[in-house]
Amino acid sequence: MSAGHHEAGGEGTAPSLPPLAISLGDPAGIGPEVVAKSWDARHSLSLPPFAAVGDPRSIAAVWDGPLAIISDPREAEGAFERGLPLIAVPAQGADIPGHPTVAGAHCSLDSLELAVGLARSGSCSAVVTGPVSKHQLYSIGFTHPGQTEFVAERCGVSPRNVAMMLAGPTLRTVPVTTHMPLSDVFGALTSALIEARGRATLRGLQRNFGLAEPRLAVAGLNPHAGESGALGREEIEIIAPAIEALRAEGWDVSGPHPADTMFHTFARANFDAALCMYHDQALIPLKALHFEEGVNMTLGLPIVRTSPDHGTAFDIAGEDRADPRAMAAAIRMAASCARHRTLHA
Amino acid sequence: MSAGHHEAGGEGTAPSLPPLAISLGDPAGIGPEVVAKSWDARHSLSLPPFAAVGDPRSIAAVWDGPLAIISDPREAEGAFERGLPLIAVPAQGADIPGHPTVAGAHCSLDSLELAVGLARSGSCSAVVTGPVSKHQLYSIGFTHPGQTEFVAERCGVSPRNVAMMLAGPTLRTVPVTTHMPLSDVFGALTSALIEARGRATLRGLQRNFGLAEPRLAVAGLNPHAGESGALGREEIEIIAPAIEALRAEGWDVSGPHPADTMFHTFARANFDAALCMYHDQALIPLKALHFEEGVNMTLGLPIVRTSPDHGTAFDIAGEDRADPRAMAAAIRMAASCARHRTLHA
Repeated sequence: MSAGHHEAGGEGTAPSLPPLAISLGDPAGIGPEVVAKSWDARHSLSLPPFAAVGDPRSIAAVWDGPLAIISDPREAEGAFERGLPLIAVPAQGADIPGHPTVAGAHCSLDSLELAVGLARSGSCSAVVTGPVSKHQLYSIGFTHPGQTEFVAERCGVSPRNVAMMLAGPTLRTVPVTTHMPLSDVFGALTSALIEARGRATLRGLQRNFGLAEPRLAVAGLNPHAGESGALGREEIEIIAPAIEALRAEGWDVSGPHPADTMFHTFARANFDAALCMYHDQALIPLKALHFEEGVNMTLGLPIVRTSPDHGTAFDIAGEDRADPRAMAAAIRMAASCARHRTLHA
Repeated sequence: MSAGHHEAGGEGTAPSLPPLAISLGDPAGIGPEVVAKSWDARHSLSLPPFAAVGDPRSIAAVWDGPLAIISDPREAEGAFERGLPLIAVPAQGADIPGHPTVAGAHCSLDSLELAVGLARSGSCSAVVTGPVSKHQLYSIGFTHPGQTEFVAERCGVSPRNVAMMLAGPTLRTVPVTTHMPLSDVFGALTSALIEARGRATLRGLQRNFGLAEPRLAVAGLNPHAGESGALGREEIEIIAPAIEALRAEGWDVSGPHPADTMFHTFARANFDAALCMYHDQALIPLKALHFEEGVNMTLGLPIVRTSPDHGTAFDIAGEDRADPRAMAAAIRMAASCARHRTLHA
């Protein structure tokens, strides 16, 4: 794929979009720190105006820069040079970095809900979600597997019709199956699911990245993509028919490819996204190549939603060690995708 | 791992070793071309003397440099400046690059057998095997899954006690299971097999790479290494016990690690080799990072055996397009490992 497609911010002379909404995630995680550090680097990284949504004290605990408390996202652009715009969702009780609490989990969920709502209403042009603790969310009754499914539900979209895309500067991958034991993949993998994820990916590339004729490369499941059946039959029975169905709709889809030769420099030039059959097949190459700047983006939603591809990292929270590059990349990608949607709407 | 461990040739002032034996592989594949191109680059790449073993016409068909036909490997060093030393194993019939024949398959097997014999007898210090066509070999009655198992048998070693290591400049990986359908991995993966491969890897790192206290990182099988059982139980029931058993023998073994976060730059610094549970888990990161210079090395043998990590590439044979870097890397690694074995014998 052409490097930088999704990095071309395009904030130049075009009319300005509403600000981005960024939920801070768990107040005891590194979310507040990486958002604050991204604001610090707003000029060098050419970041567009954004409004953070979350607990003011969680930022003050890890950062001594200026906050600009706002109550309406329309104030964000004007306030952006004066301080980090924040729509306050206070957490009850103490905020201690690295020490998650039930009150913090409630705050992270309320912040997510508000940030998604701002994007859905059009008050914000996209939502960037900071890292939450699934374990903490489950303890307060959260029933979704993760933020992705929650956002999909709030947007009225079936989780089956969205796709989790992991993106770095030279590679985008989409896993067909995600968080399940590897042995469950064989039961979960159907032609229909591969088609649905492929379609969400292809449409997402058109809508968010301005790729009129996106190219999708589909990985095999087995070593050497099954070697014509000698090393497994899923390629023949499940994957190839899904590829054929997508091609019949006019999409540019190749494969099934041996997964181990899909991700080197020259191979990556042949596709805009790789559709992978299971979690590690998508995540291993992405993180091997782009660990510090991986962005998780949900395709198939009516809104733009990105997220840095890392967790709460409670173990380093509050130590000024968190790397903001993935958050900054998520902000840039969200802005670029929102721009593409406006241009091509 | 420290980059370059296995690249430090050490050919300087130390006493010279016998030459390497290089089987050319299938005469219709790119083996002859990449060996000839490696000889062309012997000075710039500081390659040690070697003797090719195979069909002279297969080289002449793709290369117009000088051959030095020899009958004893002891002549290789003296002849090395004058031409590419070759111990002739003529193929019957026509040699046409890109068009494999039964006679060529016989030639590739005879060349492999002779080259392995030269290494076993000590006439050569190591064997580097060029790419063969398994399909062609099967057609002449070859019963081993691949060259690795053939070499192991000729050395009197059970295939279970050898390990296939894939190595590039900054990463070494070893798959516990190799060429089987992914769904067969769950039945094949046992603590005993993980231990055997781990032991072969650790001893191999000591013996061939001069690492007195090698560090082995073991991957999980499931996403997030099973997340304490929530995403699969193989880590708890099979992998962790194998790690404990190896640790009890005094080895430095870590894991099970989530496979997707093992292969970025900083993570790679924490181990000398990664033990992976299945083919693509080992091959995806290696080829994503080091596609052009991947070396396949068999650990656990009485001899040093390396191989470029690519196939016959019949589709480009004879077109002067084959990249010799992997073959050159295999030659350098074989020489370095042979040197380490001499120093530490």
